[in-house]
Formats: sequence, C-alpha cells, structure tokens
Amino acid sequence: MFNPSDHPHRRYNPLMGEWVLVSPHRAKRPWQGRQEAVDRSVKPAHDPDCYLCAGNTRVNGEKNPPYEGTYVFTNDFAALMADTPEATPSGDPLFQTMSVRGTSRVICFSQDHSKSLPLLSRPAIEQVIDTWCAQSAELGATHRWVQVFENKGAVMGCSNPHPHGQIWATSFLPDLPAAEDDQQRDYFARHGKPLLLDYVEREAASEERVVVSTEYWLAVVPYWAGWPFETLLLPRFPVQRLEDLSAAQRTDLALALQRLTTRYDNVFQCSFPYSMGWHGAPYGLDDATGWQLHAHFYPPLLRSASVRKFMVGFEMLAETQRDLTPEQAAAQLRAVSDVHYLHTLE
Amino acid sequence: MFNPSDHPHRRYNPLMGEWVLVSPHRAKRPWQGRQEAVDRSVKPAHDPDCYLCAGNTRVNGEKNPPYEGTYVFTNDFAALMADTPEATPSGDPLFQTMSVRGTSRVICFSQDHSKSLPLLSRPAIEQVIDTWCAQSAELGATHRWVQVFENKGAVMGCSNPHPHGQIWATSFLPDLPAAEDDQQRDYFARHGKPLLLDYVEREAASEERVVVSTEYWLAVVPYWAGWPFETLLLPRFPVQRLEDLSAAQRTDLALALQRLTTRYDNVFQCSFPYSMGWHGAPYGLDDATGWQLHAHFYPPLLRSASVRKFMVGFEMLAETQRDLTPEQAAAQLRAVSDVHYLHTLE
Ligand SMILES: O=P(O)(O)O[C@H]1O[C@H](CO)[C@@H](O)[C@H](O)[C@H]1O
Ligand SMILES: O=P(O)(O)O[C@H]1O[C@H](CO)[C@@H](O)[C@H](O)[C@H]1O
Repeated sequence: MFNPSDHPHRRYNPLMGEWVLVSPHRAKRPWQGRQEAVDRSVKPAHDPDCYLCAGNTRVNGEKNPPYEGTYVFTNDFAALMADTPEATPSGDPLFQTMSVRGTSRVICFSQDHSKSLPLLSRPAIEQVIDTWCAQSAELGATHRWVQVFENKGAVMGCSNPHPHGQIWATSFLPDLPAAEDDQQRDYFARHGKPLLLDYVEREAASEERVVVSTEYWLAVVPYWAGWPFETLLLPRFPVQRLEDLSAAQRTDLALALQRLTTRYDNVFQCSFPYSMGWHGAPYGLDDATGWQLHAHFYPPLLRSASVRKFMVGFEMLAETQRDLTPEQAAAQLRAVSDVHYLHTLE
Repeated sequence: MFNPSDHPHRRYNPLMGEWVLVSPHRAKRPWQGRQEAVDRSVKPAHDPDCYLCAGNTRVNGEKNPPYEGTYVFTNDFAALMADTPEATPSGDPLFQTMSVRGTSRVICFSQDHSKSLPLLSRPAIEQVIDTWCAQSAELGATHRWVQVFENKGAVMGCSNPHPHGQIWATSFLPDLPAAEDDQQRDYFARHGKPLLLDYVEREAASEERVVVSTEYWLAVVPYWAGWPFETLLLPRFPVQRLEDLSAAQRTDLALALQRLTTRYDNVFQCSFPYSMGWHGAPYGLDDATGWQLHAHFYPPLLRSASVRKFMVGFEMLAETQRDLTPEQAAAQLRAVSDVHYLHTLE
C-alpha cells in the first residue's frame, strides 16, 4: 500500500501551481560531496571593516550615521534605478524587452554587528518589523511590488555578516508573486475564501507540520515544501499587507519570528542560513480579496551545518525534488528547544 | 534614450513563459562575499577510492565491470522507484498527492577518471551522445519523460569528479518541460512553425549571441538567459528527440559540445561547473509538432573561477535577476580560444 513516508510521490503547491517530487527513501544516501564551511566565529559588536556598522564609511565614500536599531539606505549598487527611460516594445514574440523602474534599499536590523534575528531582543525584532511595514507602505505608494527579504549566511550569497535585509521595489509585478496572485485569485473565485486562510486553519487543526504557533501566527513546513526545512509563516487572521498589521499582531509576530529562527539555529547548532521574504498583495490591484500576507523561509541545509541540498540537475531541468518529507522536517524543528543554544551555553 | 547595455530591463523567455530582470549597470558592484574553492588538482586516470572507476566496488557492495568508454547502471540511491504503489487521489485542493514511478541511472562518460567532457576525444564524446540517445529511446518506451543531465563540479552538488551524468525517467511530465510543452504548442498554433526553429534562424542571422556554430548546431547565450553564462544548444534542423538524430548530426554534435565546453573552461581557466541537460518531446504525446530538441547549460560562475552568481533572495522570492547582458556574456565566450587551455599548456 502507498505510504508517503516511504514511496516517491509528487505534491502540489496550490500557491504557485507547481509540483514537487518527494523521495523519502533517498535520505539514506551517503553524502561524499562538498562540505560547507561552518562559521562559528564570535563577532565583535562593532567591526571597523564592516560597511554596515554605525559610523563606518561605505564603498562609495558615504558615511553611516551613528544609528541605533534599524537603519535604511539606498543600495550603493542597486539592481533597479528610479529613472530608466521607456523602451519601445518590439512587438516581436521571440525578443521582448520591457524597461523597468524601481529602487533597492538595505535595511540594517541593528547597530550590533554580532547579532542575528534570533539573537536580537524582542523589542529590537519588533523594530525590524515596524521598519518592514513602514518601508512597504512608503514604496507601495509608487511601485507595483515591494519585495522585503533577507539573505542570511555566505552560502546564501550574503556578502556581509552584519544583520541586514533588503527591499527591492519594482514598477512591475515579478513572476513569482504574479503566479501567487493568479492562484489566490482562482482559489477565491472557486471557494469564496482566501487560499491561505483555509490552509492555515487546516494546518492548525492537524498540527502535523506546525513548527511555531502563537496567538496570531503559525509557522509550518508546508505540505508542498521544496527546500528541506522550508517554512511558511502565516497569519491566522485575514490580512493582505505588512502595513495592515495591528500593534498586537506585530508584537506577536516578533515572538513567532524569534521562536522560528531560534529553532532553525538549534537544529544544527549553527547560524542557520536562509533566504526569507514577505509576500503581500501587490499594489494598484483592483481586487485583492483573495490575498493573504505571508513569509517564505528557504533554508538550504539538509543533514548538518555543513551538508546542504543542491537544487541542481533534475531540479533545474525538470522539477524541484526533496528527500525527507515535510512532516519529518517539521518533527525535527519541533524536537529542538525554542531557547537559543548560544543562550543556554552562557 | 533606453539602452539595454546600461538600463535595467526585463526580457521575456518565450520557451518558459517567464521574465528575467537584467541589471547591466550592477556588474560594477565589488564582491566581498564568499569565494568558491577552485579545484586545479590533476587527477589520476584511475582512482582506487572512486566508486565510478572501472573495477571498483560501489557503496552498496556491487562491483563495476572493467568498462571502457561509457557505462550505465541504476543509481544505488535512486530518487525514483519502478514499483511505487498507486495513491488514491484525495480530491482535496490544498493537499494533493500523486504517486510516481520511474528510475534513475548513472552514466559514466569514460573509464578515465581524469577527464571531463571537453577533454575527451571526439569519438569518445560521440559515444556519450550515442549512449544518451539509446537510453532515451529505451526509457522513453515506458516513461512519459526521460531527463538526461550532468551536474559538473562540487559547487553544483556533484559528489564525484569522475566524468558522469545521470538519467531520471518518470511516469509523469515534470513541471519545467510541461511549461515548455505549453509554450511550444502555443507558438506553433499561432505561427505554424516550431518556436525554437524560428529562434535558431534569427540567432544564426544576427550572430550577436552566438557562441558556437557548426554545420548542424548552434550554441547561443539566449536572449532571456538567467545564469550569467547560460547557453542553449540548438539543432538548426527540425528534430524532436535525441534518438532521432542521424549519424552525421551526432558526429557534428560531438564537435559542437567539445567547442562549447572548451570555451567554458577557457573563460576562467578552470573546469567550468554547470548543470546541463536535454529536453526533447515528451513521450506518449498525441502531437509533438511544435517541439524542438535542445540542451540547456546552466553554469553558476559570474566573474572568476571563484566568484559565482547566487540565485537567492529576490530571485527565490520574486524573479530571476542577472548582471551582465546575454550579449556581453556571448562576447566573452567568443573571445576565448576553442582549443582547451590544458592542451595549449602541454
Ligand atoms: O544524485 P547526486 O549526484 O548524488 O545528487 C545531485 O544531483 C541530484 C539530481 O540533480 C540532486 O537532486 C541532488 O541535490 C544533487 O546533490
Ligand atoms: O545584494 P547582495 O547582497 O550583494 O547580493 C545578493 O542578493 C541579491 C538579491 O537577492 C542577489 O541578486 C545576488 O546574487 C546575491 O549575491
């Protein structure tokens, strides 16, 4: 008889309209490939060579103010520019170009170079959340899409260990949120309720994939997770954008974020690398009733602090593939403490 | 005025129905992040510890025969199994599972542990091509999709430097080729000609993005490339699957493959890592007239043998992004010799 913990199967991601291949029996495979370096160095609270630390000079000669808490500035090497001239559409189906406008900002989470999200105090995390919300509201007034995200760890292409994230705002709706927009719109048309609101209720009731549960928030390894320890952070109430969160919902989000990122660090006792980011309703939509705000966490580690999952080969050419099941990953994340291992060592 | 070599823009990928964000001005950004290890070790022709070398024993206790040339066997830790039981569909839109059947094989390209595709002789490359064709035909008789691919280099998750690739055959059509199927079908319905046949003619005529051109084949950095030095290897004649290639087209393909992979190695004078794979018409289609066989090469390197592009953050959450333009990448690949640097050093 078919057993999802033993047999290869596909699961459907209704938020993206994609499938993922799950091969649970494959977790037994020995790993003889690349080992990632694990950074367990203790960092100073201020690093004179860090271009994000307070008071330091950046590559382009500008000087950071002596900030405390969060600090936002425009990326010195932004991928987007505010004043791109318009391109005339070619009308050629094989060679289509569209000029784009936008901006990229960097958001320092704290003046303290040695911290990361889970090591910040709860009020400091709340300040990060407030900054995300304020930036979304500000940039959303003039852009179709505001992507708030964090790349954490050298293995995720992060070039500076100072706790920071980014915000890229674009004049267009990018591909992945456009797919989520279609799927949520379609689900709402069929079922009369937002997809992720139905989903969060089902996950809260089943508990099988739940990692963190607070008054207002639920973090789960989604049924259709691609990355080994991928999570989806969901509001348990209807809300479309970051800036619509109430004070109480933000305070509670700080708790949920702290617990989730602490569990991540505790799984392999390392600063858990990931890309995370927020998806809220695009700006300038006629109708966003099917949308629910949510955050995705995509961490690459698979078996230890030094053995990651590679999304290559079959995954780049055919379909996302995972080894352990989402239920097994959730159980591992639940099995560790939500007190950070560095705090228990003190 | 809008200038695609200076201004951020999006380009459309008609084969996938996706966009890519191009930020050419961003190439000036200094890189302070992770440096990849560059493997310049000279490998022995036979490594007693390699589980792919002829005569050696694999992890599961089986012994490789004393093969010469290519050698194919079933992966000891296959992601797919031939005998998965059927799962009953849940009918639940949020929790959909599908059981899958298939197989994974490993294909050693040569008994010589020290080689890689560009360093093999032309006849040896032809033997690899013949093996790809024979495997596709054999597995295509009982599977919907046969994914022939190669992961090359530790940075691409390849766990063994012995020259080898893989073949995963599946009872279902995976997501990415399914998207290519839709797009090619749609283009054919509108224009009465296969998309990639129209495209190869346009690229051959313009030459701007051409990297390698032989009698039957053209390798280009596609107009919509995501990875910095991504290429698309295209037949200049109508053909739907690997096994349909004539002897002359295979011989000429060995030449095209040798030139392309040699140029890759010469760009940064290293064994250029990549994932590559073949896409041909799915099996069991009623109508495959819009399909053209092609190979994708997805190499991660960006600026040097040790600085790669990370598809993280904005890319994982919003849309693929690239720095240099496809035209600049093609010019770099054309500027190097098609004689391998290791041969000129000899
Ligand atoms: O099968 P291998 O080479 O051990 O594993 C590699 O290729 C597979 C197929 O592309 C991927 O799923 C793995 O993540 C990768 O490490
Ligand atoms: O902007 P950074 O941190 O220098 O760069 C990093 O994040 C960007 C946005 O996710 C990516 O495009 C880059 O590939 C990555 O290295």
